[in-house]
Amino acid sequence: MGQKNGRVAERSEMRWNGWGDPTKAGDLPRAVRALLPLLLGRIRKPEVPVELEDVQLDASALLPADIHAFADVVGTGHVDVSSEARIRHAGGRSTPDLLRRRRLHQTAPDAVVRPGDHDQVAAVLGVAAARGVAVIPFGGGTSVVGALDPERGSHHAVVSLDLRRLTGLLRLDEVSGEAVLAAGTAGPDAEALLTAHGYELGHYPQSFRYATIGGFAAARSSGQNSAGHGRFDTMVTGIRVATPTGDIDLGRSPGSAAGPDLIRVFLGSEGIFGVITEVRVRIHPIPRERVLESWSFPDFTAGVDALRQVAQQGGGPTVIRLSDEAETAVSLAQVGRIGKALSKGAQVVTVYEGDDIGARRARTSASLVAAGGTSSGASGAEDWLDGRFDGPYLRDALLDAGVFCETLETATTWSNLHALKSAVAAALRNGFSDAGAKSYVMCHVSHIYPTGASLYFTVLAGIRSDPLAVWARVKTRANDAIIATGGTISHHHAVGRDHAPWLEQEIGETGVRILAAIKRELDPTGILNPGAVISADRTR
Amino acid sequence: MGQKNGRVAERSEMRWNGWGDPTKAGDLPRAVRALLPLLLGRIRKPEVPVELEDVQLDASALLPADIHAFADVVGTGHVDVSSEARIRHAGGRSTPDLLRRRRLHQTAPDAVVRPGDHDQVAAVLGVAAARGVAVIPFGGGTSVVGALDPERGSHHAVVSLDLRRLTGLLRLDEVSGEAVLAAGTAGPDAEALLTAHGYELGHYPQSFRYATIGGFAAARSSGQNSAGHGRFDTMVTGIRVATPTGDIDLGRSPGSAAGPDLIRVFLGSEGIFGVITEVRVRIHPIPRERVLESWSFPDFTAGVDALRQVAQQGGGPTVIRLSDEAETAVSLAQVGRIGKALSKGAQVVTVYEGDDIGARRARTSASLVAAGGTSSGASGAEDWLDGRFDGPYLRDALLDAGVFCETLETATTWSNLHALKSAVAAALRNGFSDAGAKSYVMCHVSHIYPTGASLYFTVLAGIRSDPLAVWARVKTRANDAIIATGGTISHHHAVGRDHAPWLEQEIGETGVRILAAIKRELDPTGILNPGAVISADRTR
Repeated sequence: MGQKNGRVAERSEMRWNGWGDPTKAGDLPRAVRALLPLLLGRIRKPEVPVELEDVQLDASALLPADIHAFADVVGTGHVDVSSEARIRHAGGRSTPDLLRRRRLHQTAPDAVVRPGDHDQVAAVLGVAAARGVAVIPFGGGTSVVGALDPERGSHHAVVSLDLRRLTGLLRLDEVSGEAVLAAGTAGPDAEALLTAHGYELGHYPQSFRYATIGGFAAARSSGQNSAGHGRFDTMVTGIRVATPTGDIDLGRSPGSAAGPDLIRVFLGSEGIFGVITEVRVRIHPIPRERVLESWSFPDFTAGVDALRQVAQQGGGPTVIRLSDEAETAVSLAQVGRIGKALSKGAQVVTVYEGDDIGARRARTSASLVAAGGTSSGASGAEDWLDGRFDGPYLRDALLDAGVFCETLETATTWSNLHALKSAVAAALRNGFSDAGAKSYVMCHVSHIYPTGASLYFTVLAGIRSDPLAVWARVKTRANDAIIATGGTISHHHAVGRDHAPWLEQEIGETGVRILAAIKRELDPTGILNPGAVISADRTR
Repeated sequence: MGQKNGRVAERSEMRWNGWGDPTKAGDLPRAVRALLPLLLGRIRKPEVPVELEDVQLDASALLPADIHAFADVVGTGHVDVSSEARIRHAGGRSTPDLLRRRRLHQTAPDAVVRPGDHDQVAAVLGVAAARGVAVIPFGGGTSVVGALDPERGSHHAVVSLDLRRLTGLLRLDEVSGEAVLAAGTAGPDAEALLTAHGYELGHYPQSFRYATIGGFAAARSSGQNSAGHGRFDTMVTGIRVATPTGDIDLGRSPGSAAGPDLIRVFLGSEGIFGVITEVRVRIHPIPRERVLESWSFPDFTAGVDALRQVAQQGGGPTVIRLSDEAETAVSLAQVGRIGKALSKGAQVVTVYEGDDIGARRARTSASLVAAGGTSSGASGAEDWLDGRFDGPYLRDALLDAGVFCETLETATTWSNLHALKSAVAAALRNGFSDAGAKSYVMCHVSHIYPTGASLYFTVLAGIRSDPLAVWARVKTRANDAIIATGGTISHHHAVGRDHAPWLEQEIGETGVRILAAIKRELDPTGILNPGAVISADRTR
């Protein structure tokens, strides 16, 4: 592979207590403001959120000797105990995270440590293990499952290990169609580095603008183009990992029977086994053409039949998504479209990129028509594409208006999809109803496979008081319904701390023992992300 | 899923000291007999192999109480200590295995235990762990990497766990395109069960006629249709496993971010963690059409460029294979074609099955022509298809004639493919040459991926004495070359005992520690397949 050592400029920080670019945060669109009372009744305006400079934190629990030891590895300037740095690394971007960011007293890691390369990551882990300091690996900070909570476990302090100094295109192999990216490279920077050589990675989760390549790998991300390019799992051909007890470098060949695929042990491990520092990924030439088309189906069931046909015949669109009737009606799936019209039925968005678009579109259209679909032109899909990374901004505006908004997701086989959707939707509706809150539950299919699909739920609720406690009860009921109905506890948001109890049910006692055994072997003092994926007491 | 409980008739046993159906074993084709002196010089006829009834085994080391305990689980009729049963389970089908089968005194497991269902498998493991008896899981008996050696490790006896009573199509989900097959179901039986419902699995490794579904999973098999259907890894959507310390049932959804994919911990584990008893696989409708076409390239390099283009553009043939000049010259890749003509250049075989054959063939042909290929009609591909499972019969005939014949394989990225091929071929040639043996080394690319491809070597050698010792030295040099040149120690034959030392180099110390930690957790007394994948002393 050629040495590419491309470096990227440091990215601006995300809004500390909300999503994304602070300059893009805005008020609720007028159409949404008009819609909300119809859906949720009268909403009480919440208290004004706390300002960053007013947040109260406990003093850092790091000892001076701890700070010196970390500084010896990464340099004094890269161990940051300032309140602002600590608060900016205090958690992810779930709705509960954002609600906690509105409080006066908050919890945060005791420092932010910023290593500059793989060897510094390994050395920081060594220092942390020797000194009994927990380490929370931090990429884009976009976790929505509590993977970044400043949990110290049995240790005296906890640091956030910010990996965003590990950036760049480290190697490019144009013959094999592979690139090695430093794990802290954010999605847009990775694409810019590849674009300069005529390639793209093509991985676009909603968190794309902030999340990092290492984060995609650690959390088993799935992007909006998954119909065309697959999950991030399937794009990864190699990884380099630093663990507290040794490095590992994996991925000699695209196919192998050399024992179990150990790359898959680290994909989805969310930093509990080690820190991914480099990721080798499959790349492909930048697509020359893009075609968009929306479709309307009489109902969700007809749409599911159509998507199943498309998935099972293969060679279809790059993106395909199906909104249920509730989501279609308010067009909330397409931030750019909100308020344009209230639509009936179930809407499908398709995007085609790359080669043979004509043939792929013809084949797909035939299936969609046969299942009862009607083409509705490009504009609906264009609206989706324009707003596809902007959903979280809308959530911020909703929270500011006192409307609870959150998402959750799962996946199952095609034959179980309707049962799972009904069970989860009922759990959400009944949960809010039992708490005296009006709610509006929407769902879409965002990722299709030959044997099944994902379900992505968005809920709006007018919660009168203590939304954190109400949501905890509702989410528990939804998670219970997912497990009871045969779904996976997460299709692409991952496990973090929020889903750990249900992961244990999903993989069973033997599965938990496997994860705990690997954890004990690689991280015997349990410093890495305590309580994420599996509860900390399972790993002692 | 509908309950299908299909059962299949018991299959006839393979030839005890060679490959396949005893009635199909034959003499060397006349053309091969004519060719051999030209390639290898004068060959000395070997001694007459021992007959089954003359083989000498040590008495079974099982205690009467061991036998009673196993019989309590599976029934007296399913614990077999006869010499014939023990010899038939004494190893796999590598050339060293077959050479050892020609000796008077042989080693074998102390009994063959045949459980009838998942619960009996789990109970047998419990008995074995309690009594200190090693267990070698046995499916089709087709391992070529020493995975079935009767190794007892630190235990007082070893039994072969024959899984071929676990047969049948257990569930069929036509909506999701999935089937659950009992692990002991042989390839042809699985296809017959699915054919009755209009489906196929489409996994055709060379061992297809004997190997089992569970064996495909445990060894991370790759089939001849991998260009169209992918490796067996990618076909598996769920597994059920019995371990000595608990069961595990995995696979709720086609995509998940619920922690690491634990299915991948068992795929490729070769029975060292547990015994796979059920496998859920993706199926698809039986293809209605098949088109065959052979191509001729001026040389291997041009052929590789063509295959890379086909893999990277996608949507190509179901099967594509490229023989190098040496293999093309003698047509040994196509057993049905041997002696028809000595060919020049490098031959490519393509097979198209399924939908859109016209478009896929047009796209593929354009790439092959652009890379310098010339279509040579269907006959060469037909010959390959006719003989594609018969290579091992030819090897038996060669061994009978005193010609050493063996295969080995690896894989790497496209950019490293030529370097790897040169290094391995040189190691083989020089190894034989240093042993005073003339050799003929052939290679083909049998599996392509967007980022790389496999290399499959076939070697013929005229070894004057002690072929086992000579081959051990030559194979060591080839394996060293694979690791030094960045290849994987196996693309689809797996690790067994033969490749374990090189697997340790491939995945490194940290990788070995991960495997050993899982092993200690699930199999704390180390009864399962001791010494396979990783050396037994790493797991204590």
